[in-house]
Amino acid sequence: MATHLAAAFKNAGHRIVQVYSRDMQHAALLAYHVGAETIDNLDQLNNETDLFVISVKDDVIGTIAEKLTQYQKLIVHTSGATHMEAIQAFNPNAGVFYPLQTLSKTKEVDFRNVPLCIEGSDENITNQLTALAQTISNKVYRVNSTQRKVLHLAAVFACNFPNYLYGAAQQLLAKNEMDFEMLRPLILETAQKVQDHMPGAVQTGPAVRNDQQTMAMHLEMLGDESALKVIYELLSQEIIKNNNTDPIAK
Amino acid sequence: MATHLAAAFKNAGHRIVQVYSRDMQHAALLAYHVGAETIDNLDQLNNETDLFVISVKDDVIGTIAEKLTQYQKLIVHTSGATHMEAIQAFNPNAGVFYPLQTLSKTKEVDFRNVPLCIEGSDENITNQLTALAQTISNKVYRVNSTQRKVLHLAAVFACNFPNYLYGAAQQLLAKNEMDFEMLRPLILETAQKVQDHMPGAVQTGPAVRNDQQTMAMHLEMLGDESALKVIYELLSQEIIKNNNTDPIAK
Repeated sequence: MATHLAAAFKNAGHRIVQVYSRDMQHAALLAYHVGAETIDNLDQLNNETDLFVISVKDDVIGTIAEKLTQYQKLIVHTSGATHMEAIQAFNPNAGVFYPLQTLSKTKEVDFRNVPLCIEGSDENITNQLTALAQTISNKVYRVNSTQRKVLHLAAVFACNFPNYLYGAAQQLLAKNEMDFEMLRPLILETAQKVQDHMPGAVQTGPAVRNDQQTMAMHLEMLGDESALKVIYELLSQEIIKNNNTDPIAK
Repeated sequence: MATHLAAAFKNAGHRIVQVYSRDMQHAALLAYHVGAETIDNLDQLNNETDLFVISVKDDVIGTIAEKLTQYQKLIVHTSGATHMEAIQAFNPNAGVFYPLQTLSKTKEVDFRNVPLCIEGSDENITNQLTALAQTISNKVYRVNSTQRKVLHLAAVFACNFPNYLYGAAQQLLAKNEMDFEMLRPLILETAQKVQDHMPGAVQTGPAVRNDQQTMAMHLEMLGDESALKVIYELLSQEIIKNNNTDPIAK
């Protein structure tokens, strides 16, 4: 996260003054790419900056925020699951800068298309962070801490769980000597479809047709895959239920 | 399916002689687009053709195949879940022509990227169908009936279930006054990531990190969403389990 964000700031013409990490090597790698100074001790902090960005594991955000309080600067974290209060408890000038995207070390991402969810401890700070966010992304949203937690949860359903299911499909193929390559166009098209439709409106498959014969055959085929069998039954039931209650799912 | 396939054949320079449907209007719409004659009675069948394509509901494939037997032509069906035997029982010149894609009436699809799974009742027919498939798609696979059924099942995991989960995420957002638009880039990136990686290698989220604190918070937030809660627990457990046993999932 820190790496992607720092690169995006740098590309938009901002200056990264310093990069701190307990691990000097981590910090150095990131700092090198954006032309910043590397430190592994917060006593070496240069406070000639407008903003501190805390991009660390959720459970140490508060610890770092507390140490930065003395500088009286604007401080943001980048976590979906953490309340702004984690910073605001120590510093009134607090905010959140949450990129809603799945970031990999191995894959560059075009930050202009990454939704940035902004929260500030007052209107002035929110405006300031929104303006900053707009320099790196075309998709800037104001989102409060409660909403952001819901987004973070929704992202598990929209990203982490679908990826798990891609893996389940890949393994079913592998067991029958078929290559995952065969499924890749289908996976991409499924994601592309909901770019301009609502998911309920483009649901396909045996469950939405209530095709009991096919579902029974699939469950039989999953005979020795007990976890996948339970997942198949549960998700199919929910699709059938949705389709019976939700008019847009038809 | 019939509409997309007929258009792809036509675009590749093949001639669609006739389109049959019990519903004359259905047949006429499809036939109009590809310049074919429309019939709603199989007695009007023109047998001056090389191939009959049966693209109907799975449970009537056999009925149609039986009626076409007298013409002694090559007959294929386009179903993922149906054995080639459904045709071969009546006609030795049988095959399957299964496009592995999610097709919508409202959205055109570039057939060159649609995987076509081919099976023939003998080597000569398989070769003939493979050559035909290659005129409309760059992704042609030879797949036997057992493998094709597995593909069809895997497609439920790779397409139908992820789409259901997109819908679950959309509804979580809607309940908190947020727009599905916010999640669309994440959904697309998740599908794009597995275009050149294996799903296990790019799994992200609280479960793969075994982040118990976040998972507990998410389950609490799902308090009144009993179905989503069960789905969340089940899929998270499976991700944790995979990550502990599968070296490529790390």
